[in-house]
Amino acid sequence: MPLSSAQLIERLHACGEQIARAGSELAARGWTPATSGNFSMRIDEDTIAVTVSGRDKGSLSPKDVMAIGLDGHPVGTIDRPSAETDLHLQLYRRLPETGAVLHTHSPNQTVASRLFAKDGVIALHGWELQKALTGYTSHESRVDVPVFPNSQDMGDIGRNVAAWLDESRPLYAYLIEGHGLYTWGRDMPEARRHLEALEFLLACELDLKRLGGTS
Amino acid sequence: MPLSSAQLIERLHACGEQIARAGSELAARGWTPATSGNFSMRIDEDTIAVTVSGRDKGSLSPKDVMAIGLDGHPVGTIDRPSAETDLHLQLYRRLPETGAVLHTHSPNQTVASRLFAKDGVIALHGWELQKALTGYTSHESRVDVPVFPNSQDMGDIGRNVAAWLDESRPLYAYLIEGHGLYTWGRDMPEARRHLEALEFLLACELDLKRLGGTS
Amino acid sequence: MPLSSAQLIERLHACGEQIARAGSELAARGWTPATSGNFSMRIDEDTIAVTVSGRDKGSLSPKDVMAIGLDGHPVGTIDRPSAETDLHLQLYRRLPETGAVLHTHSPNQTVASRLFAKDGVIALHGWELQKALTGYTSHESRVDVPVFPNSQDMGDIGRNVAAWLDESRPLYAYLIEGHGLYTWGRDMPEARRHLEALEFLLACELDLKRLGGTS
Amino acid sequence: MPLSSAQLIERLHACGEQIARAGSELAARGWTPATSGNFSMRIDEDTIAVTVSGRDKGSLSPKDVMAIGLDGHPVGTIDRPSAETDLHLQLYRRLPETGAVLHTHSPNQTVASRLFAKDGVIALHGWELQKALTGYTSHESRVDVPVFPNSQDMGDIGRNVAAWLDESRPLYAYLIEGHGLYTWGRDMPEARRHLEALEFLLACELDLKRLGGTS
Repeated sequence: MPLSSAQLIERLHACGEQIARAGSELAARGWTPATSGNFSMRIDEDTIAVTVSGRDKGSLSPKDVMAIGLDGHPVGTIDRPSAETDLHLQLYRRLPETGAVLHTHSPNQTVASRLFAKDGVIALHGWELQKALTGYTSHESRVDVPVFPNSQDMGDIGRNVAAWLDESRPLYAYLIEGHGLYTWGRDMPEARRHLEALEFLLACELDLKRLGGTS
Repeated sequence: MPLSSAQLIERLHACGEQIARAGSELAARGWTPATSGNFSMRIDEDTIAVTVSGRDKGSLSPKDVMAIGLDGHPVGTIDRPSAETDLHLQLYRRLPETGAVLHTHSPNQTVASRLFAKDGVIALHGWELQKALTGYTSHESRVDVPVFPNSQDMGDIGRNVAAWLDESRPLYAYLIEGHGLYTWGRDMPEARRHLEALEFLLACELDLKRLGGTS
Repeated sequence: MPLSSAQLIERLHACGEQIARAGSELAARGWTPATSGNFSMRIDEDTIAVTVSGRDKGSLSPKDVMAIGLDGHPVGTIDRPSAETDLHLQLYRRLPETGAVLHTHSPNQTVASRLFAKDGVIALHGWELQKALTGYTSHESRVDVPVFPNSQDMGDIGRNVAAWLDESRPLYAYLIEGHGLYTWGRDMPEARRHLEALEFLLACELDLKRLGGTS
Repeated sequence: MPLSSAQLIERLHACGEQIARAGSELAARGWTPATSGNFSMRIDEDTIAVTVSGRDKGSLSPKDVMAIGLDGHPVGTIDRPSAETDLHLQLYRRLPETGAVLHTHSPNQTVASRLFAKDGVIALHGWELQKALTGYTSHESRVDVPVFPNSQDMGDIGRNVAAWLDESRPLYAYLIEGHGLYTWGRDMPEARRHLEALEFLLACELDLKRLGGTS
């Protein structure tokens, strides 16, 4: 049964508050420089809440978050969604358990995406913190984070994501070259735990490389 | 029509508040060590507001900001403007859309200015965040940030800036060797977005180099 | 004479408050990413207070800290202790002066543990701050921090710790490969001083290596 | 005319407040890890105020600061001064303009002291921020920061400082190998400006080296 308008507005506001709080904390870490980054949460089966285009992620309020259908149509607003909204929608459609998606832009994420672009993937293994990703129970497992080429056409990026998912390979996050990280979870706390763990793992992987170590 | 004295005083105060807030936030990031850096805003066609020489940029108040004509004459004050005021005035004269100029001195900016001094320019390309610079719409474009030699004579630096502008090459920011960054925008929010984006891009460029990657 | 229930509850609460404050300050430095890390304090000869499994270390309250006997049995609670509690208990049993144990997970600690894993030890010498470790009085001494292999079976790690202690070698801290640092002290302030000093020493050791220096 | 007891107590308290504020701000930057570092100010021609041994520099109050004569005798207290007080006293005796001395222990200072120990000096040139050191007016000048060997006997270090001063070479700061930085100024604001500038310059010098640049 679809939500009533009143229910939708209430849930949109609740999502907006969670997104604003996340934005404030992630911006303070320097992960959304110069208004970059965008965030979303699922409102119901067919609708998500997503940040409006171009807002400063460090000072979001619920009115900077709008509703959009999984089909891409804004719901009850004339605001324009973030330019990368299609990538959010794809994740909610293809991975129905997804409840929150975070796209950030830290220096470590961005540098790692350039450095590993030619490999197309960063293979993380041997780090205890891999266990912070839902489904992983040992540092001996291997976490593959794909690195897709950047494009100003979201369709190009989406096709690469789809190709990976079509092969039924597990996917918890991906990088776009020179651009940053997408990660997600069943709800906002899980998405944030995944983000915090991946930022840490990429930071360690890069630093080990700077020091001439092998992972 | 020129501003009345009362209007000038009011606008100077308003600029002073914006400059003080910017100073506090930029100093907290460590971008104005040991009283370095200076900031300005346009008051009207012929007059700008600029920080007084030698003040701690982390604890500015509007009384640390003075008015100066585009001709370099202080307006209604005996304060001495920042030693580098001529570089600010040049930008307001040559680029009439300019509404705010920020000069900072972060470790990344300063180190990049030394490292790329022999090339005379840092060519940024392949980074999504280039799009945070007004006028850029793709990571595939190329942003040239010139690196000019340092001098204790502002005229020497100004002549190099002028030569670049005379060739009608786009200019959004420049570095001075061993010294730091100048950037600007139509208003203070745009100038700050440019500064935040350039600091991020220089940080990424340096880190990629540390890691042996090629950009 | 064993503690009365009322005394135990009171002391558990007091330990909980110290642990929560430590957690808040260490999380703010980024040393417990994504709910990693765990902390404990001695309540009496046979009982310790330890963080409950899986809590965010940056927002602990005394109710996130439970009592457990040195024999490993929870005392007066159905909470589950941190998965690594056995490593805490081992330290309280083998080193009776121990009053507080801290396990953290900073990038420097984690990267150092990978880089020096093949040596099995990091030998610190020549740093004045070694004197912050109780018992050391000169930078000319040598502090050995062993690096043990990681395992999802705490028994494997514990056996390596025991083997080191059986040789009566001094032990103030150890690293687990890809995983982080354990350190301790007679009370929480000493444990925190040890942690702060070791984090500093590992950071310096790594940076000296990045710069091609020899220690 | 010597100070009366009441005047001495009042000035000691005023110095204690300035030292406590400096300690709080420098500790927050991570420059006094694990109770390291010590600070002093001149009370009058013959007496200085110095931090008591072993206190946490991030939470000093005026009662953590004691008076001591230039001859090394505590004045009106049974507290023990910082172990390195003799190095402070030497600076007040040999450089009579000195009003405040700061000894800190940042990672950059400590790593630089190890890396350049074999040269015995770090020669800074080409950095605009050298001008933040009183007496320097150009980036083209050269600032020599000597690096002296560490010793647990302050007399050994003091003899090296004296030998440098005996040659009438300018001295604004020195490093002790593996140990940290001493710098000073006519008053606390100047000493802090020197410290902030030197930390910045050492950070840039190290980073330029990491990047393979030459200074």
